[in-house]
Amino acid sequence: MDQIEFKADMPIMAEADICSYTVGGRVWIASGGRAFLGRGRVQLLELVEQTGSVRQAARSLGMSYRNALRLIHNINARAAAPLVTLNQGGRGGGGAALTAYGHHAVAQYYCIEEQFNLFLAEHTAGLVL
Amino acid sequence: MDQIEFKADMPIMAEADICSYTVGGRVWIASGGRAFLGRGRVQLLELVEQTGSVRQAARSLGMSYRNALRLIHNINARAAAPLVTLNQGGRGGGGAALTAYGHHAVAQYYCIEEQFNLFLAEHTAGLVL
Repeated sequence: MDQIEFKADMPIMAEADICSYTVGGRVWIASGGRAFLGRGRVQLLELVEQTGSVRQAARSLGMSYRNALRLIHNINARAAAPLVTLNQGGRGGGGAALTAYGHHAVAQYYCIEEQFNLFLAEHTAGLVL
Repeated sequence: MDQIEFKADMPIMAEADICSYTVGGRVWIASGGRAFLGRGRVQLLELVEQTGSVRQAARSLGMSYRNALRLIHNINARAAAPLVTLNQGGRGGGGAALTAYGHHAVAQYYCIEEQFNLFLAEHTAGLVL
């Protein structure tokens, strides 16, 4: 948040006077009624795609490898088709990548998030409080 | 969630075949960048208005009186004007009620929530996954 600069000639304001209202929220894609793809999981998927490695993606997010792998298995199991391929590699470990369906799902999420950000901005501008 | 009834002549479906995607989310009014009025707090305020009592409102929500009172003080402190009046009563305890500003804030929240529900329905209908 922006710091408010007080000047000598400004009236002293009660805390309530400096409150600024906004509309906030979160949005996600659900599968079978349960959260399936939100911002955090999309970040994980994108890092998997960028690095080709679940281990490196997990490290970037400060998440354990075990937890990242569990999330990816959960995402794949609850999708109409896998979003991530996990190849058991030999020397140097396996490679991981987004499938075409995974790319499509991530793009859909961002499309919804973009619309949601517009929703929040519009309703923040419209607040009369 | 609805139970899916399997019949003898239905093909056996993999888990992936029965996933149904929706767009879900949460929305709230924030003050100074922090959540200020979401569904849970609005329920509390409405129950305070209906019962005239923080204690009864808390009980209806399975929340401790202490916690409900703390929430209400927090809401009042972070608003441009108090949303709830707390009168220290004599015999029988004090009465609590929404102020005109409190009624207005609750109405604003519901207006936003209604628009958000339309947003979710529209984007669920538009999902191509």
